[in-house]
Amino acid sequence: MQTTPLRTELSELGEFGLIERLTRKVKIRNESTLMGVGDDAAVVKYNDKLTLVSTDLLVEGIHFDLAFNPLKHLGYKAAIVNFSDILAMNGVPRQITVGIAASNRFSAEALDELYEGILMACEKYQVDLVGGDTVSSPRGLFISITVLGEAAEGEAVYRSGAKETDLVCVTGDLGAAYMGLLLLEREKAVYLADPKMQPDLEGYEYILERQLKPELRPELKQTLADIQVRPTAMIDISDGLASEVLHLCHDSGLGVALFEDKIPVDPMTVSAAADFGLDPTIPALNGGEDYELLFTVPVNDFEKMRAIPWISLIGYMTTASEGTNLITRSGQQVPLNAQGWDAFIKHGNR
Amino acid sequence: MQTTPLRTELSELGEFGLIERLTRKVKIRNESTLMGVGDDAAVVKYNDKLTLVSTDLLVEGIHFDLAFNPLKHLGYKAAIVNFSDILAMNGVPRQITVGIAASNRFSAEALDELYEGILMACEKYQVDLVGGDTVSSPRGLFISITVLGEAAEGEAVYRSGAKETDLVCVTGDLGAAYMGLLLLEREKAVYLADPKMQPDLEGYEYILERQLKPELRPELKQTLADIQVRPTAMIDISDGLASEVLHLCHDSGLGVALFEDKIPVDPMTVSAAADFGLDPTIPALNGGEDYELLFTVPVNDFEKMRAIPWISLIGYMTTASEGTNLITRSGQQVPLNAQGWDAFIKHGNR
Repeated sequence: MQTTPLRTELSELGEFGLIERLTRKVKIRNESTLMGVGDDAAVVKYNDKLTLVSTDLLVEGIHFDLAFNPLKHLGYKAAIVNFSDILAMNGVPRQITVGIAASNRFSAEALDELYEGILMACEKYQVDLVGGDTVSSPRGLFISITVLGEAAEGEAVYRSGAKETDLVCVTGDLGAAYMGLLLLEREKAVYLADPKMQPDLEGYEYILERQLKPELRPELKQTLADIQVRPTAMIDISDGLASEVLHLCHDSGLGVALFEDKIPVDPMTVSAAADFGLDPTIPALNGGEDYELLFTVPVNDFEKMRAIPWISLIGYMTTASEGTNLITRSGQQVPLNAQGWDAFIKHGNR
Repeated sequence: MQTTPLRTELSELGEFGLIERLTRKVKIRNESTLMGVGDDAAVVKYNDKLTLVSTDLLVEGIHFDLAFNPLKHLGYKAAIVNFSDILAMNGVPRQITVGIAASNRFSAEALDELYEGILMACEKYQVDLVGGDTVSSPRGLFISITVLGEAAEGEAVYRSGAKETDLVCVTGDLGAAYMGLLLLEREKAVYLADPKMQPDLEGYEYILERQLKPELRPELKQTLADIQVRPTAMIDISDGLASEVLHLCHDSGLGVALFEDKIPVDPMTVSAAADFGLDPTIPALNGGEDYELLFTVPVNDFEKMRAIPWISLIGYMTTASEGTNLITRSGQQVPLNAQGWDAFIKHGNR
């Protein structure tokens, strides 16, 4: 027998009641966290370490659609995208603060779900939630997360450190998260046209999971340290490979040659792209939200890198005057293009 | 001759163009800021220091009304309320990250204004803007700021450290910001009823400035250090004196006796309260947004504290069983009440 789910109005709890409710399951996992939630500020201590800090905002109707983003998944993803920025500096994420603005359309139970997802991500990646702000919004849901991470001195990797002839490497595969999004949007449109239609998502588990519950590559740092490879530049793939590669080129003052046939794409992404009449290189280059890591290493490390099965070598850095190019499967050289503001409007994480 | 102000659509700039435009005037002022805007994360280094971190969200229609909050002032205040959380830990604010979600109702020039205010606050309080996120919003303006600060070990002051018999102290005066808000709301209503009416704000400069462009007390830390007084507990007054005192009592496991006639209220606040038929103790106790510092010191420091003209001694901490009370001007003892969720909805900074 199904029971009606509880609904507690935010107004019944009061601001401090709500904060207490949302944070009572918070556990502290890092020694560097001296004081978490509950004072004017959290207190963190890194001895002789660099502190990395990054902020990301997620906005309802822009970055997520509650028609197909369950709140728990959304919380998970909101945390993950922030951790990703610290990994992209070759650091370890340690603490987050969480700002939530929610309209009275959301019950306390809904925010519980959201927080549960955030805390699941914290548990999986061993990060401490140490503070935040919860306020009301006239309309919609806004999530703002700031992450602190640490790195030893000399360990942080910037976007600007790539050198000419460096190899361009990428973890995992690309384009799946975007195909998952297209699929969810299609099924939503079908459902809106006829609510009796059940969504047809079977066989697409991988690309849906990549969109709804992406995972990260915290193991990259140790993997590279073990084989004594030092990345020269790094960035996470939130906007799509093309956009991120162009960032590395711009900040390092270089050009690039990427090989289309080396870009890793999962077979399910290829097949979903075919369903939509898309060349699978399009989502891989411009889809975004894959949260894989893109980085460069000295060309001398070629053999070491080639031995890692979950890393692909997709090109090399050139002088700036050689331009930023994609060598297509047919051997043509075409200029790399990043998406513009339209993409930002559509699913604009950074 | 007046020229039409420029309006650049956000869509003309693209995401990265907008970020570059907003951050090109950012200056770095702190040695601890190794890397600011421009990579996946900022890089900060505190040697043998505590790192303090706090986040605040400001939401259009909840925390501010653009009918009377000029964007530059709003940016200034958004930064200030965050710095205040670090001062309330007896720390020094050093870096901020800024998240902005804005609808297409806002032009690039409007966001320039907002950023200019944030950077003015950074300049005044010597804080570095080191990163953030700028995204689009389907409706309204959301500002999320996270601040990092530092304190030497043993220097940070928590809400929980007050002892029985400690003196309760407060900087500056209270209630002015709230009376400024009431005044602005009244003039807005008059204007909406008849746009030909000019707002009547003369003679109210102080309370308007307290609402629109509040200032902080970074000098408190040094002042207390100079006279060798160590505060036992501290909090900033964002929600109103009553709410903040109750936080100190709750977290320290104590009660309090506050004297109504010792609560510092500016004469202009008294006269504005009279205009609105309010007892001036009401805005002082429950108005909020004063951003003064409330703290406790050992009773033995009474003489030292009394000598500081901009600090008022307003009561003392008691055992929890004695309760949390206000001793009125007429000598009556009444329980202190904090505002609830309504106030949060109205102007709910923390």
